[in-house]
Amino acid sequence: MALGEFELIDRFFRGRGAARSDVPLSVGDDAALIECPPDRQLVAAIDTLVEGAHFPAGSPAASVGHRALAVNLSDLAAMGAEPAWALLALTLPHADERWLEEFSGGLAALADQFRVALVGGDTTRGPLCITLQILGTVERGTALTRRGGAPGEALYVSGTPGDAAAGLQMEVSRLAVPDERVARHLRERFLFPTPRVGLGRRLRGYASACIDVSDGLLGDAGKLARASGCGAQLDYETLPVSPMLVEAVGAERARELALTGGDDYELLFSVPPSRVESLSRDLPAAEWSYTRIGTLRREPGAIVMRNGSVIDFSHYGFDHFGSVR
Amino acid sequence: MALGEFELIDRFFRGRGAARSDVPLSVGDDAALIECPPDRQLVAAIDTLVEGAHFPAGSPAASVGHRALAVNLSDLAAMGAEPAWALLALTLPHADERWLEEFSGGLAALADQFRVALVGGDTTRGPLCITLQILGTVERGTALTRRGGAPGEALYVSGTPGDAAAGLQMEVSRLAVPDERVARHLRERFLFPTPRVGLGRRLRGYASACIDVSDGLLGDAGKLARASGCGAQLDYETLPVSPMLVEAVGAERARELALTGGDDYELLFSVPPSRVESLSRDLPAAEWSYTRIGTLRREPGAIVMRNGSVIDFSHYGFDHFGSVR
Repeated sequence: MALGEFELIDRFFRGRGAARSDVPLSVGDDAALIECPPDRQLVAAIDTLVEGAHFPAGSPAASVGHRALAVNLSDLAAMGAEPAWALLALTLPHADERWLEEFSGGLAALADQFRVALVGGDTTRGPLCITLQILGTVERGTALTRRGGAPGEALYVSGTPGDAAAGLQMEVSRLAVPDERVARHLRERFLFPTPRVGLGRRLRGYASACIDVSDGLLGDAGKLARASGCGAQLDYETLPVSPMLVEAVGAERARELALTGGDDYELLFSVPPSRVESLSRDLPAAEWSYTRIGTLRREPGAIVMRNGSVIDFSHYGFDHFGSVR
Repeated sequence: MALGEFELIDRFFRGRGAARSDVPLSVGDDAALIECPPDRQLVAAIDTLVEGAHFPAGSPAASVGHRALAVNLSDLAAMGAEPAWALLALTLPHADERWLEEFSGGLAALADQFRVALVGGDTTRGPLCITLQILGTVERGTALTRRGGAPGEALYVSGTPGDAAAGLQMEVSRLAVPDERVARHLRERFLFPTPRVGLGRRLRGYASACIDVSDGLLGDAGKLARASGCGAQLDYETLPVSPMLVEAVGAERARELALTGGDDYELLFSVPPSRVESLSRDLPAAEWSYTRIGTLRREPGAIVMRNGSVIDFSHYGFDHFGSVR
């Protein structure tokens, strides 16, 4: 790289993100030192974004930086954890200063918002590939997992899944949306997703299981159900799709995208019948933006019911884990 | 991938490495849960290996798996930390089962040896690229850093740097070594480096600063010295090169490789005059394999002295941070 590794780290990454008093030693040594609160457990996740697979070639660098952190924050949100520290492994074909400026800016803005300190990293030359590792904490014994669900429990999802999938289709010119306000909304939902960290924190004590929706609602409902040793039924009519998505692709396609699109970074969670009332009292659905979309059931697998029948997805021309990419 | 992501993780990575009682939740949820000992600080590092940059295309998969962990363990060694948990982000062009078997085997064998649990990860499709993130702990306030050195302190290095650089040259057919025993030794030193975790742990209380030697002794001495606000003088005659390396490339070239070769994963550390005696008494050099190679000095930069004069590296045909790749 024209810009040396040191200069690159100094200029774009040292001291970025939130400043935290629990980091005695940050970027610039062989490793970072972190103080972990004694009454908490550490929560760790890692996620990679590869150009051409997780974002289209030529994506805005600020979006790539934002998403690298957002997808990891979403994993912590699904655990009910509080994010705190991140390490970045950035592989770049060349040190394009403008790209780096925008990338690190997008990353740092989101890090600031969630009080995440960038404490370490590695920059290497190679095909564009961003791995971010996030660390957070959770009060001992209170973490949400995928495992705690049981048949009969209510299933909820936050936000309006499907928007991001439409936004991605626009990014790769597979979808044209004439209305500029609608177009901007959908693109933003793909380029700058909002991880539901606040909701995840609050769901502790209410949700029995939780997962973040990154691969489509149906597939991720299947994962949560499987980890909980049961199945899931989603009710087609209840799927919360945004008016903007319906305007862009129509009501039918909107629900297909919600079920199978991916890149939503919403939370899907189950709540036992005994806690449904306190959930809706303590975390009003209108304020926290979540919707009941189905029920966990004994029979394994994830199905979608519409007008009293199971939808046969072969009619839709995509499989359960199909990709819109 | 022919093999799905789940199947791949289940088959090659779930439950690999050491089993640890301080991991309430491991691979398979949105994130891992870890118990951090209350009297310790967390130590975190991340390192990426890119095919063609950090290892030659076609390297044995077991070596790639070993090195992905070893380079990170070496960072923890340089901090005096005890390794504990790792997360793996593996980007693969395709799911070659034999490659994965060998890769995960190489990684797991080293993880077992150092009691590291593989607690999480991400597998994606793309150009071969391995990012490993390591977490460890260190008794509060005792971590070694690069910063603590001062002029007048003795500089030491562990092992015999330069071997790995010769091994790499053999791997890419730039060096032929007829003697099979010598050839095997040098190749092994590149393919399966031994991180100096035990030595790093023991150096706490003796070393004032420490760094792992990954980019060549001279460059890394410069980094340690700079972080400590001083310079470094290395004494050519004292450089510990292995008889095997001398046999393969001759005495002169052996020392060049030791100074600039890289991939050694030895420890370079400074010791204040007041602690030199206790170091050699408590950690006998012959038993712990380290050698005094120079001194920290007031003048910035890293120099090498030979027969009383500073070596002019322009005569050697490589620059201080040059690469043998």
